[in-house]
Amino acid sequence: MPSEFELIRRHFNRPCAHTDLSVGDDAALVRPAAGMQLAISTDMLISGTHFLPDTDPGDLGWKTLAVNLSDLAAMGAKARWAVLGLALPNVDDLWLGRFADGLFRCADQYGVDLVGGDTTRGPLAISVTIFGEVPNGSAIRRDGAHPGDEVWISGQPGLAALGLACLQQRITLPAAARARCVHALQHPEPRIALGQALCGIATAMLDVSDGLVGDLNHILERSGCGAEIDVSLLPLPELLAAGADEPLARRCLLAGGDDYELLFTASPSQRSALAALSTQLQLPLTRIGHITEHRGQLLLRDVDGRLLPPLLSGYDHFA
Amino acid sequence: MPSEFELIRRHFNRPCAHTDLSVGDDAALVRPAAGMQLAISTDMLISGTHFLPDTDPGDLGWKTLAVNLSDLAAMGAKARWAVLGLALPNVDDLWLGRFADGLFRCADQYGVDLVGGDTTRGPLAISVTIFGEVPNGSAIRRDGAHPGDEVWISGQPGLAALGLACLQQRITLPAAARARCVHALQHPEPRIALGQALCGIATAMLDVSDGLVGDLNHILERSGCGAEIDVSLLPLPELLAAGADEPLARRCLLAGGDDYELLFTASPSQRSALAALSTQLQLPLTRIGHITEHRGQLLLRDVDGRLLPPLLSGYDHFA
Repeated sequence: MPSEFELIRRHFNRPCAHTDLSVGDDAALVRPAAGMQLAISTDMLISGTHFLPDTDPGDLGWKTLAVNLSDLAAMGAKARWAVLGLALPNVDDLWLGRFADGLFRCADQYGVDLVGGDTTRGPLAISVTIFGEVPNGSAIRRDGAHPGDEVWISGQPGLAALGLACLQQRITLPAAARARCVHALQHPEPRIALGQALCGIATAMLDVSDGLVGDLNHILERSGCGAEIDVSLLPLPELLAAGADEPLARRCLLAGGDDYELLFTASPSQRSALAALSTQLQLPLTRIGHITEHRGQLLLRDVDGRLLPPLLSGYDHFA
Repeated sequence: MPSEFELIRRHFNRPCAHTDLSVGDDAALVRPAAGMQLAISTDMLISGTHFLPDTDPGDLGWKTLAVNLSDLAAMGAKARWAVLGLALPNVDDLWLGRFADGLFRCADQYGVDLVGGDTTRGPLAISVTIFGEVPNGSAIRRDGAHPGDEVWISGQPGLAALGLACLQQRITLPAAARARCVHALQHPEPRIALGQALCGIATAMLDVSDGLVGDLNHILERSGCGAEIDVSLLPLPELLAAGADEPLARRCLLAGGDDYELLFTASPSQRSALAALSTQLQLPLTRIGHITEHRGQLLLRDVDGRLLPPLLSGYDHFA
């Protein structure tokens, strides 16, 4: 009779599409393509810190992989392989089946092979390491922004923060808006296609996991420059339409995490290329400001040109 | 002033030797060599399950990486890169510094670049994913054993199990023997050089983490064969000299985990090559039995040819 250990493995042992040897040996074997760099990222997700303990296991499985894919998107890399570490307080076969289904839905959608893993007993903790490929020298790093570049954001940041506020009963939204915001929180879409398309266009990029302002600071630090964000350009209307008042909408957009949109910089000469890309991918791309030479200085300027007080920076899991 | 988060990162942000981009961006960038397969393995270590809560942080740092390196050794791969996920209940700067020192001692000894990581608050959990390179088609898998092959084990398995029994005050050993056994438990040496040297010699291989008999069964399952272990060939003298009686020594050798020795199969024609390798690496290699055609059947035969009762199989973290 198979052990619980074996039962768990079976949930995660599914066919691989582009892997020489997957689960079941000491290591998996994969063959990166010639002329490619391997992009590697790892995330650890802890119950209560990164997700609410009662999160639907299917959503959790999806999000576990999606947030890692988002890191590859932010480099302009194509997703290829992932491994999963899982510490579980007990073996709940139903929970595991649904978690695995969510995870493989995401893996299949983005062409990722799950090639290995490790399962053990312990307080619920999930660890994913993901591997992607990017042509040598093409990755979009955080350190390439230059004064004069413009600052862009994809999609609609802020929705996930509204969703979290709903689940924590800090705000109440109309049912349809609530559903949309909670979906944004629990089912983020990693911007893999956009990330790859931005190779050669964006000068610096990251994915917004901890809040737009906090994460933009990472680009400024690494690139040794500053930025001005023009508040009148922020994509607020959708948040307002969802039922948030303006201060809340602005706070969610500038400081809310968990949307996994791409924040990037590009020369003004790329405006038309970006407009075409937005149309092609059916994904809004919004210009929200520009890079300055004032190292480490991030200014928010209001419609009338007045400077706004600095906002909360990103979320620090140890703050 | 840097956040605790930033302080932690600094402990783990050390120079890399063969990495294009390491800690500090969305993903690390590495460049696998042409003609190589990438071997990938991941392990999650939980306090109380994989290590005693009061383990010295330096030893824990070493072992965290060493057990992952051992998985690469078991494929015949050369170690290259690793990423670290760390969930911590609180930020103890001294503990972290010592953990990082132990980990980097091991990384430096085996030529591994730590290229990325993730740190968060939570019950102590450590996750490592490790990457090695092996020439295309040369990896030593678990599924290549054939009837007639002989079964070999490196080094001195059983010491770590004796060490654990000492720490748990289940047995008492003389001071010098105790120190040697506890060191074997807390400071395993991954058999990287041996693993690489066995490419082209061994037909199947794994590292013994859960016990020799249990782990040998993994080779038998994957290779579709059986094995007979000749108890008179087991390397017991050193365990007896350490102070274990014969039944305990035999149990530690056959069922004790955590030694991370390599268990492999090879054709009898390789005996002299293996003797030369043992001399060259100054590492005992002991022939302990042979592979049979009786699928899934693992027999232990005593000095006088009598069959012994089956032993406990490996350690199942969910058993």
